[in-house]
Amino acid sequence: MSDDNQQIENVVRAFSDCWNRHDMEAFAQLFAEDAEFVNVVGLWWKGREEIKRAHVATHATMFKNSRLTIDKVAIRLVTPDVAVARSSWELSGHLSPAGEALPGRKGILMNLLARTNGIWKIIDAQNTDIIEGVLAPPQHGKRN
Amino acid sequence: MSDDNQQIENVVRAFSDCWNRHDMEAFAQLFAEDAEFVNVVGLWWKGREEIKRAHVATHATMFKNSRLTIDKVAIRLVTPDVAVARSSWELSGHLSPAGEALPGRKGILMNLLARTNGIWKIIDAQNTDIIEGVLAPPQHGKRN
Repeated sequence: MSDDNQQIENVVRAFSDCWNRHDMEAFAQLFAEDAEFVNVVGLWWKGREEIKRAHVATHATMFKNSRLTIDKVAIRLVTPDVAVARSSWELSGHLSPAGEALPGRKGILMNLLARTNGIWKIIDAQNTDIIEGVLAPPQHGKRN
Repeated sequence: MSDDNQQIENVVRAFSDCWNRHDMEAFAQLFAEDAEFVNVVGLWWKGREEIKRAHVATHATMFKNSRLTIDKVAIRLVTPDVAVARSSWELSGHLSPAGEALPGRKGILMNLLARTNGIWKIIDAQNTDIIEGVLAPPQHGKRN
């Protein structure tokens, strides 16, 4: 693996490492200051501070003891300093708003990274749940 | 609006125009040959041909008479030749696998575009349903 690919993969691995330590300060530092992030239900966060605040809130509650496992990281360099990294993930140990344990979830995370002053940061991210067995689900109905 | 932003917005507008004409040949031409696309249920298509084949299949069935409306297009230039374009959308007129009319859906589409030989093409896309009223839903339950 090239040095660039290794550095990019390290950022994506740090995403789950910080998540699993519930260290949202370190998590936020993976993002550029003006990064944007769309989560699995279409919340659109603008800027590192919003991304951090949202994750601090969920990691104090539903994601407090959750564990995120990121599978292979597929990397495509768009330019020498811009790359798309995409990974399947699994989440376990998360709770409902009422505090009940929930079954595991799977999804696909897209991270767009750019290198500035030698450091790769996430400048954009979008996350999508994997809903098995359907091509495109009805939005207002039961999904399984 | 700068010429670049206008050209990028034109590609995103063409995404919905081609969708609404159900012209999947023209739709496919908006993508670079090695483009990737993750749809709202986490299907990960690799290459223009796979993207085209999947959309030809759905536009012969569930999306045959569907209408996609793309709201504002938020554009961020990453380099002079690479841009992220993100838009909220609404879909109506789509059917269930059994052929029943389904309620409208909303989501957020991320397109990553690159300019090659003066032409902006989509090199990566990821789509996410908007599920209102929840921060991050259980994957195997009712969502509303």
